[in-house]
Amino acid sequence: MSGNTFGKLFTVTTFGESHGLALGCIVDGCPPGLPLTEEDLQVDLDRRKPGTSRHTTQRREPDQVRILSGVFEGKTTGTPIGLLIENTDQKSKDYSNIKDQFRPAHADYAYWHKYGVRDYRGGGRSSARETAMRVAAGAIAKKFLQTVYGVRIRGYLSQLGPIKVEKVDWSIVNDNPFFCPDADKIPEMEKYMDALRKEGDSIGAKITVVAEGVPPGLGEPIFDRLDADLAHALMSINAVKGVEIGAGFDVVEQKGTEHRDEMTPEGFLSNNAGGVLGGISSGQDVIAHMALKPTSSLRLPGKSIDVNGDPVEVITTGRHDPCVGIRATPIAEAMMAMVLMDHLLRHRGQNADVKVDTPDIAAIARVKAQD
Amino acid sequence: MSGNTFGKLFTVTTFGESHGLALGCIVDGCPPGLPLTEEDLQVDLDRRKPGTSRHTTQRREPDQVRILSGVFEGKTTGTPIGLLIENTDQKSKDYSNIKDQFRPAHADYAYWHKYGVRDYRGGGRSSARETAMRVAAGAIAKKFLQTVYGVRIRGYLSQLGPIKVEKVDWSIVNDNPFFCPDADKIPEMEKYMDALRKEGDSIGAKITVVAEGVPPGLGEPIFDRLDADLAHALMSINAVKGVEIGAGFDVVEQKGTEHRDEMTPEGFLSNNAGGVLGGISSGQDVIAHMALKPTSSLRLPGKSIDVNGDPVEVITTGRHDPCVGIRATPIAEAMMAMVLMDHLLRHRGQNADVKVDTPDIAAIARVKAQD
Amino acid sequence: MSGNTFGKLFTVTTFGESHGLALGCIVDGCPPGLPLTEEDLQVDLDRRKPGTSRHTTQRREPDQVRILSGVFEGKTTGTPIGLLIENTDQKSKDYSNIKDQFRPAHADYAYWHKYGVRDYRGGGRSSARETAMRVAAGAIAKKFLQTVYGVRIRGYLSQLGPIKVEKVDWSIVNDNPFFCPDADKIPEMEKYMDALRKEGDSIGAKITVVAEGVPPGLGEPIFDRLDADLAHALMSINAVKGVEIGAGFDVVEQKGTEHRDEMTPEGFLSNNAGGVLGGISSGQDVIAHMALKPTSSLRLPGKSIDVNGDPVEVITTGRHDPCVGIRATPIAEAMMAMVLMDHLLRHRGQNADVKVDTPDIAAIARVKAQD
Amino acid sequence: MSGNTFGKLFTVTTFGESHGLALGCIVDGCPPGLPLTEEDLQVDLDRRKPGTSRHTTQRREPDQVRILSGVFEGKTTGTPIGLLIENTDQKSKDYSNIKDQFRPAHADYAYWHKYGVRDYRGGGRSSARETAMRVAAGAIAKKFLQTVYGVRIRGYLSQLGPIKVEKVDWSIVNDNPFFCPDADKIPEMEKYMDALRKEGDSIGAKITVVAEGVPPGLGEPIFDRLDADLAHALMSINAVKGVEIGAGFDVVEQKGTEHRDEMTPEGFLSNNAGGVLGGISSGQDVIAHMALKPTSSLRLPGKSIDVNGDPVEVITTGRHDPCVGIRATPIAEAMMAMVLMDHLLRHRGQNADVKVDTPDIAAIARVKAQD
Repeated sequence: MSGNTFGKLFTVTTFGESHGLALGCIVDGCPPGLPLTEEDLQVDLDRRKPGTSRHTTQRREPDQVRILSGVFEGKTTGTPIGLLIENTDQKSKDYSNIKDQFRPAHADYAYWHKYGVRDYRGGGRSSARETAMRVAAGAIAKKFLQTVYGVRIRGYLSQLGPIKVEKVDWSIVNDNPFFCPDADKIPEMEKYMDALRKEGDSIGAKITVVAEGVPPGLGEPIFDRLDADLAHALMSINAVKGVEIGAGFDVVEQKGTEHRDEMTPEGFLSNNAGGVLGGISSGQDVIAHMALKPTSSLRLPGKSIDVNGDPVEVITTGRHDPCVGIRATPIAEAMMAMVLMDHLLRHRGQNADVKVDTPDIAAIARVKAQD
Repeated sequence: MSGNTFGKLFTVTTFGESHGLALGCIVDGCPPGLPLTEEDLQVDLDRRKPGTSRHTTQRREPDQVRILSGVFEGKTTGTPIGLLIENTDQKSKDYSNIKDQFRPAHADYAYWHKYGVRDYRGGGRSSARETAMRVAAGAIAKKFLQTVYGVRIRGYLSQLGPIKVEKVDWSIVNDNPFFCPDADKIPEMEKYMDALRKEGDSIGAKITVVAEGVPPGLGEPIFDRLDADLAHALMSINAVKGVEIGAGFDVVEQKGTEHRDEMTPEGFLSNNAGGVLGGISSGQDVIAHMALKPTSSLRLPGKSIDVNGDPVEVITTGRHDPCVGIRATPIAEAMMAMVLMDHLLRHRGQNADVKVDTPDIAAIARVKAQD
Repeated sequence: MSGNTFGKLFTVTTFGESHGLALGCIVDGCPPGLPLTEEDLQVDLDRRKPGTSRHTTQRREPDQVRILSGVFEGKTTGTPIGLLIENTDQKSKDYSNIKDQFRPAHADYAYWHKYGVRDYRGGGRSSARETAMRVAAGAIAKKFLQTVYGVRIRGYLSQLGPIKVEKVDWSIVNDNPFFCPDADKIPEMEKYMDALRKEGDSIGAKITVVAEGVPPGLGEPIFDRLDADLAHALMSINAVKGVEIGAGFDVVEQKGTEHRDEMTPEGFLSNNAGGVLGGISSGQDVIAHMALKPTSSLRLPGKSIDVNGDPVEVITTGRHDPCVGIRATPIAEAMMAMVLMDHLLRHRGQNADVKVDTPDIAAIARVKAQD
Repeated sequence: MSGNTFGKLFTVTTFGESHGLALGCIVDGCPPGLPLTEEDLQVDLDRRKPGTSRHTTQRREPDQVRILSGVFEGKTTGTPIGLLIENTDQKSKDYSNIKDQFRPAHADYAYWHKYGVRDYRGGGRSSARETAMRVAAGAIAKKFLQTVYGVRIRGYLSQLGPIKVEKVDWSIVNDNPFFCPDADKIPEMEKYMDALRKEGDSIGAKITVVAEGVPPGLGEPIFDRLDADLAHALMSINAVKGVEIGAGFDVVEQKGTEHRDEMTPEGFLSNNAGGVLGGISSGQDVIAHMALKPTSSLRLPGKSIDVNGDPVEVITTGRHDPCVGIRATPIAEAMMAMVLMDHLLRHRGQNADVKVDTPDIAAIARVKAQD
C-alpha cells in the first residue's frame, strides 16, 4: 500500500530507476485463464519506445519485457505476474556535475528534501522511464477488458503546444510519430517540432483517452468514484498537471440545460459527462483528457541552486524528449485500463448478485451506430 | 478500504444518505494531544451550510456536529474520532413520481445499474449533502496542520459561469455569499445569479484552493504523488469534472523555458508547478483548481427514461442550488487538508531520520514576503 | 487503512470508548438487496450482552443498536451501513485514583507510552466493550453468508480453565450462560465460577468456532490466506493470546500419514486441516480455536507503577467479568463471518469466470450426512 | 492490496513459482540512508537454504539474490527495492502423472477450485520455495531495526515432533541443522530424523521467535494490534496451523493473579503477555510461537481423487523436507521483522509528537541484566 502500488483488487507495483539494473513490476489479482504472452505486452511497449522518430529522444531502450511468473502453458494462473525489463543502454556517463545541483522544474530538489539521498543518474526513480512498466501492466488489463468484456481503450494526442487536432480518425493514430488523429495537422506538428528542436526548447501537450464498451456500474461512491480514480491514475503520470473527464473545464461556463446529457430509449443525446455519472460508469464512452507540461531538461541555461543553497546555472545535456506528450498516449491508455480493470473486479465482487431489467441504452446506441 | 474511505494513515470513512437518519464519519489515525472541540468543526460546517443567502438552496440543514469519541478532556487521544450529524429537515415529501425515473445527468441511472436498488429520497447517498462530513473531518486535518506545522489552507471561487475573478483579496472571501476574492466582481455575480434563478437554469463554477507553509517532501512517488492524490481527492467531490495543479491546462501551450520555475537562494522565481515537483511538495504554495458542473436538478423539463426503459419527461421540483460551486470552497479546502495530513504522517513514518542541510528556499521567500 | 478498519472489500471500521457517548461502526461493501433489520443485529448483541447471568459482569449495557444508513425499505442498498449504540450506563464514577496508575496486564501502560494520553474511564478504547460493534457488523456478514450461500457460523466454549468440554451438542449452546455444548460440564462450570468469584480471581478460556458450507476457493495466497486472516481476526479480539486452525498445536507431534486428510469421491476422511489447504478453503468445515487470558481487573492487589515510574499497589474495584471467555463466543463468530465475507467478495471479484467440473467432495459429504 | 502484499507502510509484495523462471519481490517504504548490500540478505537466505544437512531436502537452490533497484552507492534511497532470485535447479521432470491428481493435504485441490488452473510443477505458487523472498525482504527490516533502533530478532526450534527443548542457549542455534538451542537434545533429534527418513514419514515442529529491544508503543488498536498482525504474519507461512503470543494456550488454565505480569520500577516481574499489552508493545521481549504441520509430500501412498472426482492413490516422489519446521526459523524471524518494521513506521507517522516522562521499565531491566 505504499506509494508504488496502484489499485485495490487488480494491483500493480513497480520498481526501478532510469539507470539501474532493471525495471520490474508485479501485477496481482489478474483473473486466471486469460491467454497471455510477452508479445501482448511488447506491442504497447514498442508504441511507447523512444527513438522511433526524430521527434523523440534518441536513447535506445529496447524495452524487451519478460514474464517471470503467473503464466503457465500460455494462460494466467491467478497468481502474481512478475515482469522484468533489463536496462541495457546505461551509458557510463559522468554525472558528477549534476550530482550536487538541482535542475529547475525537476523532481531533484523535492526528492532531496524528502529522502536526503537520490539516485541522480538520469533522474533515477523520477525518470519517465518508469512508465514502461505501467504500459506493460496496462496491456494485461487491456487484454482482459477486451477479451472478456469487449472494452476497447484507445488514446490520441489532442493538442501539441498551440496546435489542436480538429477531427478524430482512429485509423491513422498509430501510423504517425505523434499519435495524432488528424491527418491535416501532422505536417504542422512536424514543422513545429523541428523548429523547437533547433531552439533547444520544449513544449507541452494534451492527450485524450477513450474507453468504449464499458459496462454501466463501475466505480464506487464516495471517494473511489471512477472519475476520481481516473484523475488519480492520470495525474500520477510524469509531467501531467491537469485532468478532465468529459467536458472538463468547459463545464464552468455551461448551463445546466446545456450540460445535462438527456436520455432516450435509443441512447444518450450527448456525452458531457464523459461516461461517468455520480462517480459510476453510465455505459457511454469514458473520456478523459490530460495536460502534460513541457520537458524541463533543456540545453538552454536556467537559474537554480545546489545542495548547499548556493546559486548555480544549470544546463542539461544529453538526450531528452522535447515534448514528453508525444510518447504519453500508450501510458494514458495503460492507466485507464488499470482503473477500469480494478473497478470491474471490485464491482463484481460486491454486486455479482444484482440483476436489473432496465436496458443499457448506451449499448443500444453503440449497436445502432455500427449498423 | 472500500470506496467510502479516504487516506492511508489519516483515514476518513463516511456514511449517510440525504434523507436518512444521520450522516456520520470516522476519522482514524489523528495524532494524539491535539486540542479539539465541536466548535472547531462547526466553523467550516457553517461556511458550507445552505440557506445563508438567496443564492443557495433554501433547505434548512443546521448541520450540528457531535464528537462521539476520540477526544478526552479536550484533546484527541489517537483513537478514532466518531462524528455525527443528525438529519432534521427530512420533509416527508412524496417521492413516488421520481422513484422509477432517472433524472438526466444525475447518479440515478448509474446507481440503478450498479446496485439494482437506490434510496431515491433527495439523491440518497449521491447527494452533495454527504460532503458535510468531509468538511467536518477536514477541519480536524486543517487544525493539526495549522497548529503543529503552521500550514494554512484557504480557497476561493475563481470563476462563476462566465465571470472570472481578477484579483485575490483573501480578507473578503468569507464575507460574501460566493467566497469571491474580488470585490469588483461580487455585484456582477449577484446579478448573474438572480437572472439565472428566474430562468430556472443552473451554471458551473471554478474553485481554487491554496495551501501555504507546506514543508517540502510530502508525497510519494510513483502512484501516490501528492498531485495525484489531490486530483483523486478533488475529483471525488460531487459535480467536479476537472482538476488542475499549478498552471494546469495552460502548460499545454507553455514552452519549457517559460514553464520551469527557476530557483535562487531567496526562493523560486515562479510557481507554475503549483508547489509539486515529481509528485513531492517543494515548499512553495500548493495550488489546485477544480471545475464544477452546473446542477442537473432543474425545473426546466428534460428528456429521460424510466426503469423500464420507456421515455419520460423529467422536471425536478424542490430546493436546489443553482450553482453547486458556490458552496464548494470549504469542501475543496477539506479535501486538500486530508491529503496533506495523510502525506505528512506517511512522510514522517518513512523519513523521520532524514536530515538535509539544504535550505528550504520557499520558506525563506515566505519569511521575506512577510517582512 | 488505519488500525480500526478490518477487511478489504467488506470493511468494518469502529469507533468508541467504554465510557464515551456512543459506540459506532461503518460497514462498507455489503452487497445490495440483502433484507436487513436492527433485529437481525440485536440477536447476537443480546447473546454477547453482560449481566444475563451471575457469571458475567453486572453492568447494564442494553446495547440497543440503530441502523443509521445503507438500508432502505428493509434492504441493503450497497452504500455504507452506519451503526450506533449509545452508551447509557456511564456511572459518573470517580476515576481520579486510577488516572495516574497502570493496572498490571492491562493496556494502560502501553497506551500511555504510545499516545501520551488515554481515556482512563473504564478502559477507554481498550475496553472489551468495543467488541459490541464487531458483533453487530458480523451479524450482517453472517446473514449474507447464510442467506445467499448457505454458510452457517457457530461457536462454543470449548474449555473453561481446567474444564474441557467432551462433546458438542449444538442444540444447548445458546441455552446456558457459558455457550457450553456439553450438558455434563455445565454444573461443574457453575461451581467453578462461583468459587472463583468468592476468591476474587479470574480464569482463562478457550473458544471454538466453526463455519459449515463454506464454498471451496476462498482465501488468497500468499499473505492473505484464509487461515492467516482468521488468525488476524481472532487475535485482534481483546484477551486472545493464541489461535489454532484445525488440529492447531497438535500438529507438532503428528506424523504426515496421520495429519493428511485423505480424499475420496464421497468426501474427506478427516479434517486436521480445519477446512483450509494452502490458505484456501477446501469446502470442509472451517474450524478455529482461540485462547483467552484471564481478566486482569482483580480486587486482589497487584504490584505496579504510576506515570512517574513510582511503585504502587493496584486494586481494581468495579464490575468485571471473572472470565472474559464466557461472553466471547459471539465475538469469535462475528470475526469469522467478517473474514469469510470479505474473502467471498474478493474471490468472486477475481474468479467470477472460473468453472471447474471437479466435484466439491465436502458438499457431497454434507448432503450425505444430512440424509 | 491483493493477497501477495504484506504490510501498510513497509510493504513486501512477492511473485514466483517453485519451477518458474525466477522468484522476486518488491520492498516498498524502506527508509532512505540504510547501508544495504546483497550480502546482508544472503546471510539469512543461506540459513534457510535446503541441502545443507541430510535432514532437509537435497534440492540445490543456490538462492543467490540480486538487488535490482532502490539502493544507490551502498545505501537505500527510499524508493522500492526490487529483489530477484533466478531459479536454476528446475529439473525437467515429467509431471504428467500428478497433473490431474490432487495430493492429500496439499493446496492442489483448493487452488484448482479457486482458479480452475494451476502450475503443478513442484507445487507452483503454493511451494514453500516462495518463502525465500520473505527471508530476503525480512533481512532488510531486521537490518533497519537493528541499526536504527537496536532491536534484535532471533528464533529457534522449540519442539521437533515429541522432542521439546528445555533450555535456550542462543550461542548454538545457528551451529546445528535444526536451529535447536538445547545442546542436549540435538543427538536425540538427529536420531529421530534418521528413523523418520527411513520410514518415509514426516513430522511437525514448533518454532519460537523473540524480538528484544522493541520500543513500547508499537501496534494499533483495534484490528491492527501488534499481536494480531504477528498472528497474521506467522499463520501466512506455509504449513503453520497455530500461533501463540507469550503464554499462548497456557492462559486457558491460568488464573488472573498468575497471568498478570506485575510491574516495578525495575521492570516487569514476568512476561506472560509476550511483550504485548492491549495490542501494543510494552517494551518487554516480544515472543511468539508457531506450530508447523508435517510435510504432506510422502512416498507412503495416500487416498485421493483426480480432477474428474475419481479415486486415485497418490505417492509423492522427489526431494522433500521430512520436517518443514527445520528450515522455518529464518522465515519466522523475517515475518516478525516485517511486522515490527511496519508498525514502527506507522507509529512514528502518527505519534512522532508524543513525549512521556514515564520510564521504559523493560529497558531499565535489560540494561540491568547486561551489567
